[in-house]
Amino acid sequence: MKSIVILGSTGSIGTNTLDIVTKFPEQFRIAGLTAGSNDRKLEEQLRIFKPDTVALTDPAAAERLRERCRDLPVEILSGIEGQSQVAARPGVELVISAIVGGAGLVPTLAAIRAGKHVALANKEPMVMAGKLMQEEARRRQVNILPVDSEHNAIFQSMVGHRREDVRRLILTASGGPLWDMPLDKMRYVKPEQALRHPNWKMGPKITIDSATLMNKGLEVVEARWLFDVPPEQIEVLVHRESIIHSLVEYSDGSVIAQLGLPDMRTPISYAMNYPARMPLDPPPLDLARIGKLTFHRPDHDRFPCLGLGYESLRVGGTMPATRNAANEIAVAAYLSESIGFLDIANIVRTTMDAHQPVDVSSLDVALEADRWAREKAAALVRALSR
Amino acid sequence: MKSIVILGSTGSIGTNTLDIVTKFPEQFRIAGLTAGSNDRKLEEQLRIFKPDTVALTDPAAAERLRERCRDLPVEILSGIEGQSQVAARPGVELVISAIVGGAGLVPTLAAIRAGKHVALANKEPMVMAGKLMQEEARRRQVNILPVDSEHNAIFQSMVGHRREDVRRLILTASGGPLWDMPLDKMRYVKPEQALRHPNWKMGPKITIDSATLMNKGLEVVEARWLFDVPPEQIEVLVHRESIIHSLVEYSDGSVIAQLGLPDMRTPISYAMNYPARMPLDPPPLDLARIGKLTFHRPDHDRFPCLGLGYESLRVGGTMPATRNAANEIAVAAYLSESIGFLDIANIVRTTMDAHQPVDVSSLDVALEADRWAREKAAALVRALSR
Repeated sequence: MKSIVILGSTGSIGTNTLDIVTKFPEQFRIAGLTAGSNDRKLEEQLRIFKPDTVALTDPAAAERLRERCRDLPVEILSGIEGQSQVAARPGVELVISAIVGGAGLVPTLAAIRAGKHVALANKEPMVMAGKLMQEEARRRQVNILPVDSEHNAIFQSMVGHRREDVRRLILTASGGPLWDMPLDKMRYVKPEQALRHPNWKMGPKITIDSATLMNKGLEVVEARWLFDVPPEQIEVLVHRESIIHSLVEYSDGSVIAQLGLPDMRTPISYAMNYPARMPLDPPPLDLARIGKLTFHRPDHDRFPCLGLGYESLRVGGTMPATRNAANEIAVAAYLSESIGFLDIANIVRTTMDAHQPVDVSSLDVALEADRWAREKAAALVRALSR
Repeated sequence: MKSIVILGSTGSIGTNTLDIVTKFPEQFRIAGLTAGSNDRKLEEQLRIFKPDTVALTDPAAAERLRERCRDLPVEILSGIEGQSQVAARPGVELVISAIVGGAGLVPTLAAIRAGKHVALANKEPMVMAGKLMQEEARRRQVNILPVDSEHNAIFQSMVGHRREDVRRLILTASGGPLWDMPLDKMRYVKPEQALRHPNWKMGPKITIDSATLMNKGLEVVEARWLFDVPPEQIEVLVHRESIIHSLVEYSDGSVIAQLGLPDMRTPISYAMNYPARMPLDPPPLDLARIGKLTFHRPDHDRFPCLGLGYESLRVGGTMPATRNAANEIAVAAYLSESIGFLDIANIVRTTMDAHQPVDVSSLDVALEADRWAREKAAALVRALSR
């Protein structure tokens, strides 16, 4: 039985992970759960899965949970320190890192430093400090297994093949809910419309990132560090049906791909149990019924956020972290209708232009760039929404 | 440097293999070449690649070659025995089995029995005596690596994944040159039309087998033995563009596929050099330019030969060998315009119905079923063309 911790258990990846644990109770034991501020949902989960420890980032939420759970033998921690303590808990083998955004960096790194294998659903740690994360993982001989459907597909398409034969990684992109929208309409698009993803049910932040293609820009950076492949060998291909989750091209012309109906439980379970698969037995992929799969080049004019991803990689250092932090602030402002849809890219662009990148030599450097960019982006939001 | 023999060096797979050897002269040495009766082409090849031994099945062709090559230090053998001697030659590591049709069975088995690894492009040995071939390969600890694009794709899609997690093999089929033709027109289709394959340049026998889908029926049988998967877990999917070469579905819903532009050098080189790939560096697969990939269910009414493949597997024993032999006779009769296109399936069907299957307990049993079916099918051809 594998002892696991879920960082971000109340989100979409977290609840899907718990679904899998429910289906295979003899294989996993939940040792710890963490969330941001949703103490109600965390309480439900801890009463079912009986972890030893939980943490909430928000101290007030943690206090409420303590009040209500006096009857239970569970340790309730708070803050980023609490998250990190749960992540580093002795006896835990695998940490599912599923916090949304840059807040996942510190606890995920804490898990690696404590020698835990990590199933990584949270893109931002790799985006903010990919080199550092990989160096630590190598030092502690820890596996980082990608949960994101695209990176999991690339991982599955590289297993059993020689790394030195890889010629190109091809990340597929659904194109998101606004793929067909002309630029002059994108200007006025409301959050409720941008939140209607055609294929995947995900949280609001990542769904807006799909609509801007910022998500794919983040994935390019993540792929660069996860697979140690330079950005010029990473391509993005728009594939509206989200059936081919990504592809790897080799030097002999072979391309290996992972396909499937969109179901996050497939990549999550693969990362949880690699190299063995779990018999989820979903309906078979019926390509004859689907009829056709389509492919397009990304449109950089209407989706500048993708290009910003490549640009941040070329510049390197703290630039990807800056881009990520500015995007988090801009997306939150868009969701609260303080700024328009196209302002997201403009705020990220302007923040990046103002940034003086330095090498990410330590966690503090990454966190400082993150803090700086959030402040700068927030100032830009205030200026725009005035 | 790997010492190799090519059985069937003057055919399409044979010449593609020699192209690869020319491109990577430091990796392979040609120890032996064989052909059926094309002594002119074999002479060209032996003057370039300087094998120690060659063989021609046709004794008269072998005699002509001996006359013309008195100046060369090459041993020239003849007959099936000659083919088998070349296949079993000491010092040879890998035998490329690329003879067309049932004639490949004896020399391919001779290679395995002599402990050679086999790159198998010739479907019929597995169809006629799959169980026997696999038992011998296991006994001699010999790898049988599939060269056929579909089986090579399945092999590549299983490398690195656990055999016990496989749920389904999906063989793709281009549908061949007659996929869109109504049944009443198929009756009158001429060989020149049936030989126009949309995607692959291949020899005439296999191209007609593509037009009837008999080729896919043979591949189902071959896959059953190559991968030890029962027929009910093997599916056929029509995919006109021949970009996805085949797929494997796993128990968690993941489907792994191998894709590429149609180029036989990719699977040949993979089988020659597994697990390392050879840097053929063909043009990259540009899915955005291709635009879409389509999928259809096979049409059993117009293409009964596919169903005959499954049926022969269900019956088992000598039935697949019988079906194969009857098909070879029928295709030859169709190519010489002695019978019509739809007669191919009828002759195979009638021969199968007349056959009393027995277990393939030895090579002789398989060869006797082959001989019997050829005689029966030839009698049917004579009756039809009278």
